[in-house]
Formats: sequence, C-alpha cells, structure tokens
Amino acid sequence: MGQGQGDYRILHEAALRDYLAEQPDLVTLLGAEPVSWSITEVGDGNLNLVFIVKGDRGGVAVKQALPYVRLVGESWPLPLSRAHYEYLSLSKQAQLAPGLVPALLHHNEALALTVMELLEPHIIMRKGMVAGTQYPRFVDDITSFMARTLFFTSDLALSAAEKKQGIAAFAGNHALCKITEDLIFTDPYRIAEQNRWTSPYLDALAAELREDMELHVAVSRLKLKFMASPEALLHGDLHTGSIMVTDGQTRVIDPEFAFYGPMGFDVGAVLANLLMAYFASAGHERSPGERQVFEDWVLGTVEQVWNEFARKFLELWRDEAAGDAYPISLFAGEKGAARLEAERQAYMRRLFTDTVGFAAAKTIRRIFGLAHNIDFELIEDPKKRAFSEARAVRLARGLMVEAAAAFRTIADVTGAARKLRDWMPELSG
Amino acid sequence: MGQGQGDYRILHEAALRDYLAEQPDLVTLLGAEPVSWSITEVGDGNLNLVFIVKGDRGGVAVKQALPYVRLVGESWPLPLSRAHYEYLSLSKQAQLAPGLVPALLHHNEALALTVMELLEPHIIMRKGMVAGTQYPRFVDDITSFMARTLFFTSDLALSAAEKKQGIAAFAGNHALCKITEDLIFTDPYRIAEQNRWTSPYLDALAAELREDMELHVAVSRLKLKFMASPEALLHGDLHTGSIMVTDGQTRVIDPEFAFYGPMGFDVGAVLANLLMAYFASAGHERSPGERQVFEDWVLGTVEQVWNEFARKFLELWRDEAAGDAYPISLFAGEKGAARLEAERQAYMRRLFTDTVGFAAAKTIRRIFGLAHNIDFELIEDPKKRAFSEARAVRLARGLMVEAAAAFRTIADVTGAARKLRDWMPELSG
Repeated sequence: MGQGQGDYRILHEAALRDYLAEQPDLVTLLGAEPVSWSITEVGDGNLNLVFIVKGDRGGVAVKQALPYVRLVGESWPLPLSRAHYEYLSLSKQAQLAPGLVPALLHHNEALALTVMELLEPHIIMRKGMVAGTQYPRFVDDITSFMARTLFFTSDLALSAAEKKQGIAAFAGNHALCKITEDLIFTDPYRIAEQNRWTSPYLDALAAELREDMELHVAVSRLKLKFMASPEALLHGDLHTGSIMVTDGQTRVIDPEFAFYGPMGFDVGAVLANLLMAYFASAGHERSPGERQVFEDWVLGTVEQVWNEFARKFLELWRDEAAGDAYPISLFAGEKGAARLEAERQAYMRRLFTDTVGFAAAKTIRRIFGLAHNIDFELIEDPKKRAFSEARAVRLARGLMVEAAAAFRTIADVTGAARKLRDWMPELSG
Repeated sequence: MGQGQGDYRILHEAALRDYLAEQPDLVTLLGAEPVSWSITEVGDGNLNLVFIVKGDRGGVAVKQALPYVRLVGESWPLPLSRAHYEYLSLSKQAQLAPGLVPALLHHNEALALTVMELLEPHIIMRKGMVAGTQYPRFVDDITSFMARTLFFTSDLALSAAEKKQGIAAFAGNHALCKITEDLIFTDPYRIAEQNRWTSPYLDALAAELREDMELHVAVSRLKLKFMASPEALLHGDLHTGSIMVTDGQTRVIDPEFAFYGPMGFDVGAVLANLLMAYFASAGHERSPGERQVFEDWVLGTVEQVWNEFARKFLELWRDEAAGDAYPISLFAGEKGAARLEAERQAYMRRLFTDTVGFAAAKTIRRIFGLAHNIDFELIEDPKKRAFSEARAVRLARGLMVEAAAAFRTIADVTGAARKLRDWMPELSG
C-alpha cells in the first residue's frame, strides 16, 4: 500500500522470486531459500497472471492483474484497480464468511498483486462436475457464503450511512461491471463480433434470440437492475469456475467483479452453472444413463442451494437485523411480528424471481456470447453439444420471460429442467 | 474551495459584510459601498442561515449552513458538507434545467456558504397557495425541471460508469438522507418524541396508523426503495416550500437533500404538496365555495404535473437516450421500436406507482411527524384543521396501501381527492 501507480511492473518468474524474498512473513511460510522455490504460472482465467509458488516449508498462490484482458491482449485495456476491489471484497468476505475464501497473506496495491493461501488439493468445481463428481459440502458452504455476504452488506444489516459508504467504495470498479453489462446483458442478443456459438447447429436459435423482443425487454430489465439496484456487496462472478472444492472444503475465489448490485445476480450465477452442468452431462455420458446419479445430485443441489440459501438468509434477518430497512419498532407485538414475517416471505419471492432471471441471462451468455464454459466446450461432438446447449437455452428463455408467472418455486425450475433432459430440438445445418 | 474545514466560522451581519466586500464580482454586483449594503437574515427554513444583501446596484441571497439543525439547536448536529452537496446539485440542475434554479454567484466550501441570485419578487409557492393564488407557469416549469434533471442523471441517459461516479459523489450526503429516512419513513408510524399532530382531534387516527401493519409494510418498502434505488439525482426535498414563484417564473431552491434515489420521491413530493394544499383549502375559505376555482386549479395541476412530466420524460427517452439501459441496438426495426415503446409505457406505470406511494408518505409525515406545513398550520380553528388533515390522511393511506391496484391513473387520484373534499370524519376529543 502507499506505493504510487507508477511503481507497477509485471512480475514474471525471476522478478516475482526477488519480490517475495523481500517479504519476511512469506519467506517464513515458504522456506528460507528463495532460489529453491518452484514458481509456476497457472492462470487459466481470462484476465490475470496467477503463480503457484512452493518452497520446502509451504506454498502460496500469487495473483497479479495485468493492465489488459489476458484473453484478448493489450488491445483491450482493463484497469489495474480491479486488484484493489478484489482485495477489498476478499477481506470483507473473509470477515463475513470465515473459512470460505482463501486466506489473504499479502497485498501490494501498486503492483496490483495479492498473495493468498495455496488451495491444495482443491480443484475448480467446474472441472469436477464435468467429470461427474459430487461435492457433499457444497450446498452448506455456498449457501452460508451467499447468505452471510449478501445479508450482512444489505440494508437489512447496515445503517443507510454504512451502506452508502460501501456502495461508494466499490463505485470505481465500473470497468469490470461494464464487461458484465456488455457480455451478459447485451451482446448475446445482437450481432456482436465477439459472439460465438456451436455453428451451424445453433445458427437458427441464435437468430431467433436476436429477434425475440420479449426476451430483449426481459434482459434489459435485468440489465437495469444490475446497474441500479445496489442491494448488497456481490461477488459478481460466482460461477463454478470461481469455486474451488475438495470433498470436505469449499473456497470461493476471484471476486474482482465485486460491487454493490442485486443479490439475485450471485444466487442466479450459482444456479445457472449447476443447471448448465446438468444439461451438459448428457453430452459427457459414454453409455445412456451412466451419469444419472450425478445428474440427480445436480438437480437436488439446485433445489437445496435455493432452499438453504433462503432459509439461512431468513434466519439472519430474524436474528441479526440491525439495519435501517424494516425497522423492528414498526412491527411490534404478535400482529407486527406476523406481518413482518409475511413480508420476509414476500421479499424472498421477489428475490427468487430476480434469481431465476439472472440465472437465465448467465446461461444464454455462455452459449452465444464471448466466454463459454468447459461444461459444454468439452463435449467433443458438436451436435451433441448443440443438443445440450439448446435444452439449456430453452429453459433459460422460459425463466427469463415467464419468471414470475411460471416459475414460482425452485421445484418448478428443476422440474422443467428434468423434462428437457432428453428433448430433441431441431438443429440447423 | 481549497480551504480547510478549520476555517469555518458563522458569519453574522458584520463578518458577512466584510467577507462579501472582499469578493470583487459581488461588490460589482451590489454596489461599491459595502457600509451602505442592507443585510437581513430571513431564513425561515429548519436548517440554515439565509441573508438578503442589497446594495445600490443590486442584491444577492447568501445561504450558510450551520453545524446543527437550526430548528432544534446544537443538540442536533448536522454536517456542514450539506452545503457542498447543495452546491454540487444546484450546479448540475442549472446545467440540465437552465433558468429554473437560482443563478450561482459564489461558493466557499470551508465556510459552507453559497451566494445566489436574489429572487425578487418571487415568493415561496406554499404561501401563495395558502392565499389561494394560481400559478400559470408552474406546470410547465416544474415538469421540465423534473423530467430533465431526472432523465439526464438516469441510466437512460448516462453510461453505467458516469452513473456510478454520480452516485459516489453524493454518497457522503447520508446525514441528510437519514433525516428523511427517520422523519418521513419511520417516526410517524411509531411513538417518537418529535411527533406531533392536531390533538386531541387526531389522537385516535394517530393511534390507528401506529397499529396499521399494512401501512407499516408499505412505508417500509418505500423506505427501502429510498435507500437502495439510485435511479437518478434527486432534489430530495421538492415541496412547495422549496419552490419560489411569480406569475411568470418558477425557481427551485434548497437542494441540500440531493442524492441518487428513486425518481418517484421527487415527483411524489410535488403531488403530495399540491394535494395537501387542496385539502387545506377548505380550512381557509371564509364562505362555502369561495375557493372553488382555486381548488379546481389545484386538482387540474395535480393531473397536469403527472401527465406533462410523463410526456416530457418519454419524449427525452425517445430522443436523447444515450445511456446504457435499454440499448437501442436490442430494439431494431419496426417490431423492436414498438416493443420498446410498450416497455417505456410500462416503465412509466411502475414510476407512477412509486410516485403515489411517496406522495402518500410525504403527506402523512406533515400531519403526524416533526415538520408540519403552513397549508394546514395556518388553519386557525384546530377542528377545521383536523378535518382537512384527516381527509388528506385518508387519501394517503389508500395511495400507499392500494397504490398499484386502485390508483392506475392520476385521474384516479384526483377523483378520490375530490370525493373526500367534504367528507366528515369522526374526530377524537
């Protein structure tokens, strides 16, 4: 901290070794001989450099932001300040959801560099799901993470002054928000250079979405909500590629898209990525029904993620509501308590509607936009992939356009998904 | 600007004269002999010092914030920074709605002092309405002010980055927002030391509101919307006491409550204060029907304020939508244009529902909360006053609880008001 922006330089292996060797706490952790440390660049994300550094005593992960989008190159600049917002939100999440994010070991604002606990033997959850692995801790951990980080940064837990300070502290992260606004809420619905899809099979479906004005209105409402509803501090990119897991542990990583936005965006991201894993599963089976147990687990997990999140969020609201919203003094006595409880349920119904809408937007962008995911991408046969994708899009279109009317409970969502499991859409080409 | 906070001191007459005499532009404007300037303190608001300064060439108005609430005294401190936010919002309003706010002549951040155009012979609109005066320019001017200041600071006109910068720039004004949160959205609905009402006549009605849980839910939803829906830069206190008028001119003053909030709060404030003037009118008549023409004008004005505001706002949206919300590229062709137009209408219906809800909250606070208004207060006979107030409350309760269902157009609101004009409620005492 305190270093000027002018001190930024990209730390490749040698420079990184020298830099870490100057940090006594890290030397203690890694082992006293920097020359013997192994340093491996492992970043498979779209934006940053990520190194794993191991010494004879221990290891760390080092993340450094680049001044551009790694996936695209210097032609797409992106502010280094995102490392600041990532550090700020990680610190907040560590406080609100202890044990569910990597421990922070070191941060250098000028270098846009953060050193964190090395997560080992954790793997990216998305990879595990492609392989058909079940994660028994996942529901409890991710719902605790979401319920606690969202509730405690909302108007239900904070004074209006604290809330406004929080909003202002993250307002500068608008370049990362803009990526979401463009790539999720806009480009997949129009001709855009960066769009791609499983062609030719989904050509007609892509064209259909570009002409579907009900869908355009629905996604535009979601976009406006994303931009102008600072309900809580979001992770902002909570897909299964931002979650590292073992059988017994869950860690949420990479909150560089953090800002104050609508809660349903985070919850919807988790649900969307589970639903995509479900629809992709048919494309990964080597024999019919091979992954049925896994698929049942996925849909059960979709239901439990919503139900447990809602239960924990409501429990926090009942027990720890210190915020300026819904002041308890207006709901005194038995009658007041009953009316407030009914309003809590109504609040959760509105949040559910937001959630399924955002889940739909997150799904469509992964099939027609710039950034795809390996759930679908690793299905080698493009026709099989297109079937899985078309089923996911069919559900997403319904979730977005008919959200409030047709999908009143999470069981309505999983029921619709199950019905589409073996649906054979007409493909182009 | 640039002076430290330590330079603050309260400028009473002599010190103010010395200070103004050091500002060459103001000396030019007022006249070269400071000793001959007349300086009169005229502040009748609740928060600040206001001086009128006149020399042989011209006059100015000087507003200085006090570090506490003037109405209450030093026991209720209030940050001087509100003068900064007032200056910031006045500058923005002057740019967006030229000619509808007083011209800014001088600002001293450290002294929390602003010198403005002297509005003469303008009077506070509320005073004119108590006297039964009609203002032919009012509808056109106030709807231009609202449509332009709200539209051009919204996501419909700004990029998401500009919008977030705007929100952050006003986030520090939370102490003023807190006054609104407490005095408008909370205290009138519970026992609070600062509440008062026309007692004993409204005692039973006050008790009824404190037990009315449907109303408490409705006002709590509005409070949450006020805190967490930064749709546009609001004036934040847009009642008829913040509007100065002549037959031919309208000037909106005193935006120290400015912040990014829900548009309906400003529009609702105007409607509420017109409706209160309507209900108060019966209490000011010396013979039955004496003020009928005025009352018809008021209700006609209520209708026109909404209709003209909506018309101008929609016109701006059609012609000047440069913002990130509802991107035009998603609504191409005839079919797209038609669907977007339908969505604009739906947007205005949602805004109308917000507006009548906020109008109701603004009404109830003036009858049961700390700050009352002279529309009612100048009705000398307390029983007559209570009748007028009870009618306004009856309408407000309906607007807040049944807003979307029962009041679909502004004519529904004025129709309900007209029916209540001669309603004789049962009073206490």
